[in-house]
Amino acid sequence: MIDPRVPIATGAVPTVSGRRAAYFVSDSTGITAETLGSALLVNFPAISFEHRTIPFVDTEAGARDVVSEIDRAADAGLAPVVFTTVKQAQLRAILAEARAVTIDLLAGHLTELEEALGADASEQMGQYHGVGDMQRYQARMRAVEYAIEHDDGQSMRALDIADIIIVAPSRCGKTPTTMYLALQYGLLVANYPLTDDDFPTDSLPKMVAPYAERCFGLTTTPLRLSQVRHERRPSSRYSSLEQCTLELRRAEDLYRRNRVPFLNSSTKSVEEMSAVIMQTMKLRA
Amino acid sequence: MIDPRVPIATGAVPTVSGRRAAYFVSDSTGITAETLGSALLVNFPAISFEHRTIPFVDTEAGARDVVSEIDRAADAGLAPVVFTTVKQAQLRAILAEARAVTIDLLAGHLTELEEALGADASEQMGQYHGVGDMQRYQARMRAVEYAIEHDDGQSMRALDIADIIIVAPSRCGKTPTTMYLALQYGLLVANYPLTDDDFPTDSLPKMVAPYAERCFGLTTTPLRLSQVRHERRPSSRYSSLEQCTLELRRAEDLYRRNRVPFLNSSTKSVEEMSAVIMQTMKLRA
Repeated sequence: MIDPRVPIATGAVPTVSGRRAAYFVSDSTGITAETLGSALLVNFPAISFEHRTIPFVDTEAGARDVVSEIDRAADAGLAPVVFTTVKQAQLRAILAEARAVTIDLLAGHLTELEEALGADASEQMGQYHGVGDMQRYQARMRAVEYAIEHDDGQSMRALDIADIIIVAPSRCGKTPTTMYLALQYGLLVANYPLTDDDFPTDSLPKMVAPYAERCFGLTTTPLRLSQVRHERRPSSRYSSLEQCTLELRRAEDLYRRNRVPFLNSSTKSVEEMSAVIMQTMKLRA
Repeated sequence: MIDPRVPIATGAVPTVSGRRAAYFVSDSTGITAETLGSALLVNFPAISFEHRTIPFVDTEAGARDVVSEIDRAADAGLAPVVFTTVKQAQLRAILAEARAVTIDLLAGHLTELEEALGADASEQMGQYHGVGDMQRYQARMRAVEYAIEHDDGQSMRALDIADIIIVAPSRCGKTPTTMYLALQYGLLVANYPLTDDDFPTDSLPKMVAPYAERCFGLTTTPLRLSQVRHERRPSSRYSSLEQCTLELRRAEDLYRRNRVPFLNSSTKSVEEMSAVIMQTMKLRA
C-alpha cells in the first residue's frame, strides 16, 4: 500500500491534481496509524490518496511543524485526511488545529475504555522498555538467527526445537513467511525445499520426516508459480508451466499422504499466511 | 506483549482469578486489532489482561462461536474487553451481543470518514489481491533474500544496490533490524559487523567504505551489550564489560569521523529503530 522506495523530500506537499493527501501522524513509529488508516482508506476506492507517514511527533514544536505541512497541502488542493495516534493531549490539541479531516485512532477509544473499566488511563502512556521488552527483543533476535540458519534446508542443527517447519517447492513463499513468523512472534521456524529428488518416495524428506507433526506445507497455482520462477530463470524448464504443474501436484499429494496441513499462498499476503499457520498449529494465544 | 510460545487450547476460557480477558477479533489476520488494542490496554497498568487473538472471523457461524467463548469468559469472571476490526455489518451486530465491553476499532471511523469525504464506503471492503499485491509480494521476497545473503558481511554481490548498509559491533541488533526493514518495507538492506580488525584505521571497513552515504550505525550501552553477549558466550573476553565498552567507544568514534548517522539501540524496539533509520535516510514516504 505504501511504496517506501519513492522518497518524498522533507517539506514536500504531497498533493497533485485530483489527489487527496493522507497523513499518518504518530508519536512513535507510525506503524499503527499507517496500518489502520490505510485499511480505512481502502474503502474509498474512487478517491486517490497520497500517503505520508510522519513518525516521532512528540514535542509541541514538532506538532506545529506537522500542522504547517498539512495546511500547505490544504492550500494546494482538497482538505487532507489526517490519522493520528498521538497520545499527549496538548499535542493532539495542536494537531486538531490543522485544516484537515482529523481521525483520532486512539483518544476516543481510550475514553470509551476509561468509562467501561471505571479506571483512569495512566498519565504515563506509551512504551515500556523494561525486562519484558528485553526478553522479547532477545527472543526475536534468536528467532531471526534461527530462521537464517535454517533457511532452505541449510542446517540440521537443533531442528528438534523448531516450532514450525515449512515445506514447499521452490518459490512458493517459504522464506518470507518463515521470517515474518520469527520476527513478529519470536517463533523458531525452519524451512525445507521439496525438490525433484524428494518426490519418488511417498514420505517426507528424510531430514524433516521425524518432525512431521510440526510440518506445514505451502502450495500455489501453477500459473503464479511459473510467473514467480520466470523472474529468476526466464524460459527455463524450472519456470515452465508444465514443470510447475507437476511439482505442485506432487507436493499436494505428499502433504495429503503425510497429513501435513497446507495452504495455497497464491492470493495471500505473508501476514495472512502466518496467521493461518499459527492458528492451524495452535501456536497463537 | 503476547507470548505465542504458550499456546492456549481452543475453547479455553482465558480468565484466571483477578485477570480480565481481552479479545482481539478480526475477519483477517488480527494484527491491527492486536496492535492497536494492546496499545490501548497498556494505559491501564493496574489491570491484568489475558490476551487472546481470534483471526479470520468471516462467517455468521464463526461470529456466534466467538460470542459463546466471550460469554463463557464473562461467566467466569469480569466482563471481557473485546477489540474488533470486523468489517461486515451483520457480523459486527452478532459480536455486539456478547456480554463484554466491545470497542469497534473500524466502523466508527468509517462513518466519520464517509461524512467528512461525502462518499459512501465501498461495499467491497477488505483485501485486494491484484497486481499491486503481487508486486509487493515479489519486492518483499527479493528483499528478504537479499537480507539473508548480505547478513553479517557475508557477501559483496550487488552491494551497490543496497538501500541501507547497517554497521555495528556484534550483538547490537543489526540482523533483526535488517530483516524488519526488508520484510515490512521491501528495502534492500545489508549489514556488516565491526570487528577488532576494523578499528586500527580511521575509515570504514574497505568493503562498505565506497557506500558510506548509505551506511547507518548502531550502538548500545556497554552493560546491555555485555548482557546480550553473555547469553552467547558466558564469561568470555567477548562478553566482558571492558571489551564491550572499548568496542562501542571505537564504533561511535568511527561513525562520527565518517559522518555515519547512528542510533543507540538499547531502549528501542526493532520497529522503532527501523522507523528512525528510514526517517534519517529519507526512505519513508
